[in-house]
Amino acid sequence: MTNVPAAESGVAISPSEVGAIASEVQQLIKAGDHDTAWERLSFLHPADMGAILLAMPRHSRDALLQVMSPDTVAWMLHQMNPLQASRVAARLGSRMISGVLDQVHPRVALNALMRLRPNQAREVAESLEQAIPDTDIFAHPAGTAGALMARAFPVANINGTVSDAQNGLRDLADSHYEFNRVYLVDDQGQLEGQATVVNLALQPPQTPLRTIAEPVVATVGVDTPAAECARLRRHYGVVQLPVVSDGELTGVIPLEFLLSAVVEEDTRQMLNVGGVAGDSREHTLVSAIKTRLPWLTVNLGTTFLAAAAISLFESTLVQVVILAAFLPVVAGQGGIGGTQTLTMIVRSLALGEFIGVSAFRLLAREALLGLLHGVWFGLLVGVIGLLWTRNPRLEMVLPLAMVGNMVIAGVSGASVPLFLRRIGVDPAVASAVVVTTFTDVFGFLLFLGIATAMLGLLT
Amino acid sequence: MTNVPAAESGVAISPSEVGAIASEVQQLIKAGDHDTAWERLSFLHPADMGAILLAMPRHSRDALLQVMSPDTVAWMLHQMNPLQASRVAARLGSRMISGVLDQVHPRVALNALMRLRPNQAREVAESLEQAIPDTDIFAHPAGTAGALMARAFPVANINGTVSDAQNGLRDLADSHYEFNRVYLVDDQGQLEGQATVVNLALQPPQTPLRTIAEPVVATVGVDTPAAECARLRRHYGVVQLPVVSDGELTGVIPLEFLLSAVVEEDTRQMLNVGGVAGDSREHTLVSAIKTRLPWLTVNLGTTFLAAAAISLFESTLVQVVILAAFLPVVAGQGGIGGTQTLTMIVRSLALGEFIGVSAFRLLAREALLGLLHGVWFGLLVGVIGLLWTRNPRLEMVLPLAMVGNMVIAGVSGASVPLFLRRIGVDPAVASAVVVTTFTDVFGFLLFLGIATAMLGLLT
Repeated sequence: MTNVPAAESGVAISPSEVGAIASEVQQLIKAGDHDTAWERLSFLHPADMGAILLAMPRHSRDALLQVMSPDTVAWMLHQMNPLQASRVAARLGSRMISGVLDQVHPRVALNALMRLRPNQAREVAESLEQAIPDTDIFAHPAGTAGALMARAFPVANINGTVSDAQNGLRDLADSHYEFNRVYLVDDQGQLEGQATVVNLALQPPQTPLRTIAEPVVATVGVDTPAAECARLRRHYGVVQLPVVSDGELTGVIPLEFLLSAVVEEDTRQMLNVGGVAGDSREHTLVSAIKTRLPWLTVNLGTTFLAAAAISLFESTLVQVVILAAFLPVVAGQGGIGGTQTLTMIVRSLALGEFIGVSAFRLLAREALLGLLHGVWFGLLVGVIGLLWTRNPRLEMVLPLAMVGNMVIAGVSGASVPLFLRRIGVDPAVASAVVVTTFTDVFGFLLFLGIATAMLGLLT
Repeated sequence: MTNVPAAESGVAISPSEVGAIASEVQQLIKAGDHDTAWERLSFLHPADMGAILLAMPRHSRDALLQVMSPDTVAWMLHQMNPLQASRVAARLGSRMISGVLDQVHPRVALNALMRLRPNQAREVAESLEQAIPDTDIFAHPAGTAGALMARAFPVANINGTVSDAQNGLRDLADSHYEFNRVYLVDDQGQLEGQATVVNLALQPPQTPLRTIAEPVVATVGVDTPAAECARLRRHYGVVQLPVVSDGELTGVIPLEFLLSAVVEEDTRQMLNVGGVAGDSREHTLVSAIKTRLPWLTVNLGTTFLAAAAISLFESTLVQVVILAAFLPVVAGQGGIGGTQTLTMIVRSLALGEFIGVSAFRLLAREALLGLLHGVWFGLLVGVIGLLWTRNPRLEMVLPLAMVGNMVIAGVSGASVPLFLRRIGVDPAVASAVVVTTFTDVFGFLLFLGIATAMLGLLT
């Protein structure tokens, strides 16, 4: 028995409504009432169906998939945004996807395949019994323009008329990608310009295409990294990106794929800063450990550097043991100050906002900010510490170390990401650990060094 | 003397080429050769012109703006993506913008105004001498759908034909927003559906619109937060968002504005995690301090909590002072473990991937990951510590504390963001400080607590 979506389906609802339906559906499946469970789902937008499937435990999900038609599963994957579709597909597993796509029209199967990550798409495509058109698109590695592009796209000869371009668009009407540009090529297939679909809807059919041709702002090659495609999308506001080899148009990255590349870029930066790039809630424990362990190991090394810095001053600590309690104050405040600065810089770099001219001004700004913060918090901790320890001479040490460490935080927070980028290391991945190592180690050295120098006065 | 862009302008170039041209232009301006400087710029895409203006020191920028025509400045702002345009406009200053927009066609001025942040747009609009149509759009507060929407959009009666919808589109041809949907309303102006421009380009003019009408997936109200618009864009893949009040269509958020809202949302999360939300390289020192100080102050409070935890064990530290050196190891490793977990959760929440069903599974997963990491790093620090201190009994303390703190890191990293969201606090803003407070304070309590309990054995 198979089911297809209800006619009323597809309207947006709130995340809490999605959550409520998810719970309800899971109850129904537990009770064995699979048909009613599907009926509740069938009214939803495919994006919400996918989100619910994603959130379900495996056995409930499998039970639900049994009552959906293969066409519905393929349609759902194709309607979702590529990022979410690839996550749902990863959950479903390649074998389940193959089973589904072998039972649908090859064109539908291709559309669904295009939503998977290139690695999984290739795996699924190879295991299919039916032949799928254009599977050579999976020949391009993940993270390149080639893996994002559609091979079928609207095209017309620039010497033709609006009517010719409309025909080019009509040929693509079943591809289910929305194209808002028709590409104009010369007799040799070289890309010469583009026509907007808006213009095609407004101009009389006999209008020569040359009169409405617009220049193409940006093109990429099949090997261009997805990150660069994302930058072009964001910086120049392009809504599609033609892929060209030897001047000849070989593919077009549709808007949805371009936007997925942008979202992946943006959030990858955030995951990189947190040291969890590539991890996701769906991953197995083993792959989560693989992703996180290198970072945690590097961090362990840096904490031992900090430990070594402290151990240099063992004899000072024996004499004034309360100093140990203030260690996290110096290091913690420096660490957060440095992280604030580097987060801003990493984001600027990620958004491509950086142009060489202003690097020095930036460093000076952050050093000054660090100094101002250091003086302010130095005064504050001086007063708090004095109330706590009632030792005025001890309470000279903490403010001085605070000023020094906040300046170090500002300067390292600004210069480390810029330096890492210059030597070809992704600043998002490595900046945080380098900056906090600076602030920890120099913070401890400053604090305990000043304390040792003043030891005669302190004891 | 004024200048307009060269005919060949507008093709994408690499960021390093932009950087090179920026340096060259600045040299030319220093040498007083403003015309050649402008000539170099005039071949660029408006997005690159804006980026170069943004990177320049004030006096060079002002000199350059003097040789650009007001029409060019207005055109540049309008062609840039809204985020970047608002940043350039903030740099130029409201007075400069007013001066420019008073000299261009009201429609051009409106288009440029729409690219500014609502606050600045209102300020500029009020200071203009010429009357601008539709300035009531600036009545809506920043961060709402009302502030993002265009008041002029293509619309047709659903009882009409394709030809009527084409007329609706034609009326908007000078608005410079690209609309890829014509909205279909009934006789009372209630939104009934939409037609894609692709369909309007392909169907014969006499086709009744009802036959090509498609349902509208999502609508919002003028007060809907931009963050919710961003979620709808991302989750449902909508390319425009109709704004409705009392069922009547009052505006449409064009794609570029929707995408700017998404980018702002995504990167705001990252800035929030870093505690620098709202800061930017362009801000004055005072506003940077205003943005960062609250966070630094909260952090200072938590470091004193950690200091208090350590000071509880002063007598233990006096006896075994080397324990102080290992404090950053326990706290640092717990902190980074907790941050990894919370970064992943905050990103999931930001992308709207979260549905209640899986919260428990998630907690269990992160606790287990913490346990595994704790055992592994516990063994590692045990061995390293043993080689360092040659005190086997001391080196029982660090591994035990490590296991405990990594579990605390996993559990708090997963539960704190979920809990904060439930009580209505933005998890991106507050999670990191709460989680690192947990891992610092409990890490120190565990480590020094275990050490104190074992003190008889240690000394």
